[in-house]
Amino acid sequence: MELEPITQAIFYIIVILVFAKAFGELAERVGQPPVLGELVAGVLVASTVFRYLNVEAAENQPLLLLAELGVILLLFEIGLESDLEEFLRVGPSALLVAMVGVAGPFAVGYFVSIWFGLATKVAVYIGATLTATSVGITARTLSDLRRLGTAEAKIILGAAVIDDVLGLIILAVVTGAGAITAWQISKTTLLAIGFLLGAIVVGVPVAPHIFRIARRLRTRGILTISAFLFCLTLAYIAHELRLATIVGAFAAGLVLARTEDQAHIQDRIKPVADILVPIFFVMVGIRVDLSIFNPFNLETRGILALMGVLVAVAVIMKLFAGLGVVQRKVSRIVVGVGMIPRGEVGLIFATIGLTRHVITPGEYAVIVAVVVITTFITPPLLKLAFRAGGREAAKQVGSSES
Amino acid sequence: MELEPITQAIFYIIVILVFAKAFGELAERVGQPPVLGELVAGVLVASTVFRYLNVEAAENQPLLLLAELGVILLLFEIGLESDLEEFLRVGPSALLVAMVGVAGPFAVGYFVSIWFGLATKVAVYIGATLTATSVGITARTLSDLRRLGTAEAKIILGAAVIDDVLGLIILAVVTGAGAITAWQISKTTLLAIGFLLGAIVVGVPVAPHIFRIARRLRTRGILTISAFLFCLTLAYIAHELRLATIVGAFAAGLVLARTEDQAHIQDRIKPVADILVPIFFVMVGIRVDLSIFNPFNLETRGILALMGVLVAVAVIMKLFAGLGVVQRKVSRIVVGVGMIPRGEVGLIFATIGLTRHVITPGEYAVIVAVVVITTFITPPLLKLAFRAGGREAAKQVGSSES
Repeated sequence: MELEPITQAIFYIIVILVFAKAFGELAERVGQPPVLGELVAGVLVASTVFRYLNVEAAENQPLLLLAELGVILLLFEIGLESDLEEFLRVGPSALLVAMVGVAGPFAVGYFVSIWFGLATKVAVYIGATLTATSVGITARTLSDLRRLGTAEAKIILGAAVIDDVLGLIILAVVTGAGAITAWQISKTTLLAIGFLLGAIVVGVPVAPHIFRIARRLRTRGILTISAFLFCLTLAYIAHELRLATIVGAFAAGLVLARTEDQAHIQDRIKPVADILVPIFFVMVGIRVDLSIFNPFNLETRGILALMGVLVAVAVIMKLFAGLGVVQRKVSRIVVGVGMIPRGEVGLIFATIGLTRHVITPGEYAVIVAVVVITTFITPPLLKLAFRAGGREAAKQVGSSES
Repeated sequence: MELEPITQAIFYIIVILVFAKAFGELAERVGQPPVLGELVAGVLVASTVFRYLNVEAAENQPLLLLAELGVILLLFEIGLESDLEEFLRVGPSALLVAMVGVAGPFAVGYFVSIWFGLATKVAVYIGATLTATSVGITARTLSDLRRLGTAEAKIILGAAVIDDVLGLIILAVVTGAGAITAWQISKTTLLAIGFLLGAIVVGVPVAPHIFRIARRLRTRGILTISAFLFCLTLAYIAHELRLATIVGAFAAGLVLARTEDQAHIQDRIKPVADILVPIFFVMVGIRVDLSIFNPFNLETRGILALMGVLVAVAVIMKLFAGLGVVQRKVSRIVVGVGMIPRGEVGLIFATIGLTRHVITPGEYAVIVAVVVITTFITPPLLKLAFRAGGREAAKQVGSSES
């Protein structure tokens, strides 16, 4: 221990967490999700403290491991909180909303990117990033508005979870090795679906036995370690199958969500995630190259234009997803607006694309900006939508009754 | 994310934690402290899986960071659990036991090492390692024997905590830069005492304010992060003062032990420590070169002899510490035996010595072996001592009454 690079890494962790919490808190205070604050913190740390100290945080392996563990635990927690059965009960609306909300942004995002002269692989990747919906940010906003119990909220959250699954499958396809061919796509899709189903079919009956044995063990922290190991193991298997580690972590969460230890596991994993997840988001921000957004530089103007168009696509095509609602008395505007924030999942896509060299730093910055803007506008838009949506739903009921 | 070295590190973490828990559990089942199982796990991982895969775990920076965070959190927890005031009440006995138990092993360990032809700096280091007493292992054994409430237990634990402080000061001196001179020793001693006192004098009144502000913040996990940051910051400051990071972590624990959030912080830090602390002990085991203990190799026989003598010194000189008891009706044998296990602190010393190149891999293996043996023999010896000690105390009372 006590080697210089290690104590340096500890210093970086201190800086990262202080900035993350300061700006996360600031975001909360102005009614925005803390994750936005953490992104801004990353951009600022990179361009102030770390630039001054000449720190290449994005290349620092210990920090990269902590960030990777952070995003793995984030998806593990999202899985742990997903009650598949309840979402299945919301029925066809959620599924339809999810499918429209994935297909629309993907197709239009792809064609716009091609029109901007990007390569097929990059266009597919940008399209894929636009498919995500952030369960976390939408759930948090709905809860702030005290609307978590409404039918709209249930459809939005159900659709967002299905979106996560569809998004992870798309991610597996677009990050798969080699060129994107029909054979490649079907192979990866089958692999991803097979992995998720397999993890659930095998995991749900097996996991309770593992945890029953674990409870009989006497060593300290055995439940925490067992859950952590279960999550890491599925993440690693997913990676070995050429899927993303987060697909495995999400599957691990889904499986353990159905065990009787679910609440306990959530409680024990939370402090670990509290420390590691912000490190991931700050590292996402650290990777953003601000010079991309210089409007006075001719070369980057194209990128700014692309960003503007993609934001429009991201917002409008998710609004169409609201049309997937088949139930009555449910506001389609509210559901559509609720699907807008790309949040964590979009950022994870962008990061994986950058580190796998599928997209350039410029394209990465554009995606992060689109994610940030969609996330930024959702809370106020959702408030407006609920006001408008009340009238819309009332009108629907009125017209059907007349 | 998803870079190859990072997913590799995740694989190593899985292997390390599986071995740690399997052998930790095995140790528990045969009545030994789990930490011994984790050490054995490290030795086995290094000579099986990691050797087969050609993994240089002891050089892997992400793993080294996790291990370092593990030992920092371990000392933070020990600090958090220390109630300085209660120990002060046990009074002069604990202090005297601690001082005899530090001075004796240090002096005799030093002279024995010199007699074996080791350099002064190494001899000082080995002497220093023998001074430690493991609060954790002794407390755990006393609790298993249902003797935590006895006067002997309070003196042992009080003395062990004082030992930790004295040991950390000695560590700071022996790992200090440059040669060991009287000026160097007094400078580092003053610095270490000054740092600990300063942390307490400044920290105790200031920390509650920090945590009062933290409680007003709204972001998720703020208590966990604040405690973690407080601990890391003091650890980093200690490092910058050329003390060990663990001195700062211990000080942070002592300070936060006196805030009203103490129980909460302990609860939130525990899952993080549950995951990271075993990684530290496995890494300690991974560094042990088993070939040192080959009795058929002439070159290593001297090392085996040194080990045997040091074990004898470590046991006998701590038994003398029992003579420091000034109270009546207290068994000196029980107190002496209770001070024997070197445990975590001895291992931390050894690791720091190795990574700072103060001691060689051979000397490192000897120290780890001495720590393991003293820890191994304490639980059964303590049971015997309580039986014998009962008679001894009764005799004392009898003779003083007659």
